[in-house]
Amino acid sequence: MTSRDGFQWTPQNGLKQGVPSIGVISPSTKITSNTPWDVIVIGAGYSGLTATRDMCVAGLNVLLLEARDRIGGRSWSSNIEGYPFEMGGTWVHWHQANVWREISRYQMGEELEPSFDFSRGVNYFELRTDKHSTTMSHEEEDTLLATALEKFVNVDGDMGRIIVPFPYAGFHNPDARKYDKMSVLDRLNVISQSLTPNERTGLESFILLCSCGTLETTSFFEFLHWWALCGYTYRGCMDCLISFKFKQGQSSFAIKFFNEALSTGSLSYAFDSPVKSIQDEDKKVTVTTRDGRSFTASRLVTTIPLNVLNDITFNPPLDPIRTQATKIGHVNQCVKVHAEISNKDMRSWTGISYPFNKLTYAIGDGTTPAGNTHIVCFGGQHNHIQPEEDVNATKAAVTSMAPGNMDIQRLVSFPGIPLFEEIANKLKVFHNWSKDEFAKGAWFFSPPGFISSSLDALRQRHGNILFSNSDWAIGWRSFIDGAIEEGTRAALTVKEELRSTRLRSHL
Amino acid sequence: MTSRDGFQWTPQNGLKQGVPSIGVISPSTKITSNTPWDVIVIGAGYSGLTATRDMCVAGLNVLLLEARDRIGGRSWSSNIEGYPFEMGGTWVHWHQANVWREISRYQMGEELEPSFDFSRGVNYFELRTDKHSTTMSHEEEDTLLATALEKFVNVDGDMGRIIVPFPYAGFHNPDARKYDKMSVLDRLNVISQSLTPNERTGLESFILLCSCGTLETTSFFEFLHWWALCGYTYRGCMDCLISFKFKQGQSSFAIKFFNEALSTGSLSYAFDSPVKSIQDEDKKVTVTTRDGRSFTASRLVTTIPLNVLNDITFNPPLDPIRTQATKIGHVNQCVKVHAEISNKDMRSWTGISYPFNKLTYAIGDGTTPAGNTHIVCFGGQHNHIQPEEDVNATKAAVTSMAPGNMDIQRLVSFPGIPLFEEIANKLKVFHNWSKDEFAKGAWFFSPPGFISSSLDALRQRHGNILFSNSDWAIGWRSFIDGAIEEGTRAALTVKEELRSTRLRSHL
Repeated sequence: MTSRDGFQWTPQNGLKQGVPSIGVISPSTKITSNTPWDVIVIGAGYSGLTATRDMCVAGLNVLLLEARDRIGGRSWSSNIEGYPFEMGGTWVHWHQANVWREISRYQMGEELEPSFDFSRGVNYFELRTDKHSTTMSHEEEDTLLATALEKFVNVDGDMGRIIVPFPYAGFHNPDARKYDKMSVLDRLNVISQSLTPNERTGLESFILLCSCGTLETTSFFEFLHWWALCGYTYRGCMDCLISFKFKQGQSSFAIKFFNEALSTGSLSYAFDSPVKSIQDEDKKVTVTTRDGRSFTASRLVTTIPLNVLNDITFNPPLDPIRTQATKIGHVNQCVKVHAEISNKDMRSWTGISYPFNKLTYAIGDGTTPAGNTHIVCFGGQHNHIQPEEDVNATKAAVTSMAPGNMDIQRLVSFPGIPLFEEIANKLKVFHNWSKDEFAKGAWFFSPPGFISSSLDALRQRHGNILFSNSDWAIGWRSFIDGAIEEGTRAALTVKEELRSTRLRSHL
Repeated sequence: MTSRDGFQWTPQNGLKQGVPSIGVISPSTKITSNTPWDVIVIGAGYSGLTATRDMCVAGLNVLLLEARDRIGGRSWSSNIEGYPFEMGGTWVHWHQANVWREISRYQMGEELEPSFDFSRGVNYFELRTDKHSTTMSHEEEDTLLATALEKFVNVDGDMGRIIVPFPYAGFHNPDARKYDKMSVLDRLNVISQSLTPNERTGLESFILLCSCGTLETTSFFEFLHWWALCGYTYRGCMDCLISFKFKQGQSSFAIKFFNEALSTGSLSYAFDSPVKSIQDEDKKVTVTTRDGRSFTASRLVTTIPLNVLNDITFNPPLDPIRTQATKIGHVNQCVKVHAEISNKDMRSWTGISYPFNKLTYAIGDGTTPAGNTHIVCFGGQHNHIQPEEDVNATKAAVTSMAPGNMDIQRLVSFPGIPLFEEIANKLKVFHNWSKDEFAKGAWFFSPPGFISSSLDALRQRHGNILFSNSDWAIGWRSFIDGAIEEGTRAALTVKEELRSTRLRSHL
């Protein structure tokens, strides 16, 4: 099945909207029960899928509404020529409790593979700055980045462990709040005299890989929170953030949730159904779609992301703190470009090109069925580029990561449209998240002060409406794990509240 | 409520069987449905509780049978004078996916507290051997143990990451199997020339803290597996294995599973119901208790531990590999002694006394309501002691961990009975696991060759019978996490198999 999301370009057909994905659901609507529902879920990303599945399994009568034609939200994979291009969230790790519990439950542990392969080929790290370029071994790369990161996070003499002792309770130590007032740049200014130029380059590039904002717009606390979640080490960060992915792509995981929900017989769903407004009343909540259909339920779980939440009309209106938070939004405008290059030896390459380049961090991520090397490159708000708006600049940014070695055969970008005439008889796919009306950005990353001021409010209910999204998870906020954490939380609340009603109706 | 399990001694009442616990269930039997059941679960430890809860939530008709009068199996806490003494499994961590998913789900993340507190007091590590005694800072302790452990596990130049790259797939790299043929002693012999005497003492003591067997009976692979799960670092081991516990004790966690299952209305249960035999037929399975009651269901989930599985009669009999595995059993005969001492400064003490002593590894674990320091000490099959059989030897073993500083006010042992006449007007509690007919040992730890030969067989079904226990989990085998992993697996299998039947019956 082919999703409307994304584009692909082939010499035969030129540019066509749509990318094949196993996450596309057909038929797009299946309604087996009548209004009023026990619960409506808006959004079929991991948060919505988890909430839907848990409530269906519990016997609740669930209607799932989704704006797109596919599941997965900000995590989905195309599958073209046998190779899954990850259009959004990619990596998972067994230290992520919620995601791993599900991988374990669906017995998919053996379906992961490592992104890195340092067993052959060039096997070096390439560090390029405005003035200098150098290559070093991956051991030297690790030492450089570990040393720099340790200087950065070591606010307490114990690598952040005292300030964030419980990563699932970020402000357990109240002193952590002051670091949320600081930007990453503020912290860099404190330690600037202790960093070598290479350390500073590597450090800034790594931080911006995480936030995809700028040094000024990235909360220092939020970075400390990631660091704590990853076990307070650089190696832990690499393991948890960018090492292990699904051989068959993210959509092979997401579909498990959907299929389990469907198998209960309790699920109705309607894809292609963007929501316009939500009306909450005493004992019910009514959702109206853009095309004028209305659905009513006892409870609503909305998983609409932070950056698009204020596109929906709520009646009664949302509280002022939440409204203000949605106006601020998060800062992540990730640019992710997949390059397929013919140099097989680049499989073991990693590189940083910063600050001059429009893509700043890249790694060898796989070998395609054609035998080419797959390189994944990241950029963000720093030196921002919209790949499809200046294709030559995008190509230059990729090439500049490793001049002389980037013999590009194919580009896949996130966001952005690669259109290189010289890439004959090759297919190109992309998904522009920044311009995606249902996301307006990639994974959550907070600006200074945001978590302190807004997290609690974002987690609150609003009458019969529960809000569930990784953007305001407690633990792996921004991650698939956080989405599952949130969906679990919403489902448990709804189940507890509706249980007495349900039991009565069965007697 | 007071459990039959355990004993307590007070000057007023002398020795009395039974320890209060919030894990005791009253009334002990509640049967709200009739035979045949959809499914019977044997055992109300974490594995059985998880399976029971998941299947009840899914609307299956579940009967839970438990030999004891309480939930929790090998993990339960007494609660006396406001302080929970952990009678079994204690520590949890957010890198344990299954356990943390549940802690997150039940919103208990803030109910954890650290065992260690190095903020005040003596703040040193005491290392005692047959010939030497020394104290050092905790930083020096960490360096000593990390250095020794790294030499021990570094079979591949990358700290075991190449041999066990996926800790949830132990033999993903087939080369790992050869390390399962080796005992810990075999590996120590390989590296013996590179270890200082202090490193060897610390290393052996730490390994035996994990296995509670002997160096000869402990599988080197199984230790590598623990190491991989903990993130391939000593710090990770400390974090995951022995750092964070429930303020209100393990039973405050286990009861959440039971209460959720009960709230569905689908749960019947009978405690005080040890099972004698299990008869599997074409479409049903019948369980007979020691007192002659019989119950029939479509499926059975047994969570009976490895070391007691062959006390049950199965008809048809279990396959030869499983039968042989139950005869071999696991090697863990942990001796855990809690000492309450008046020296407040010992809160920040840690110690190893090895190999001469009958308890080998100990830490300051808390401060009791009386203001005393709680020290927890571990021993095992090495230099084994049955605490209640030689009380003076037990006391000497505790005292010998830190001569001059162990002014014992109370002892709580696991296993064992502390009975010191001088501990007037104090209460003593214990649970002897080695002699517990429903456990015959503490957490699983495998002898050499066992995982290679038996793990797959132990995970197989037997007709309508599913086997679910942490003893044969894939990931955190031996841990509460592994129990939840296993219960989840069993529930999913049963739900999938019975779904079609259930759906039919509802039409």
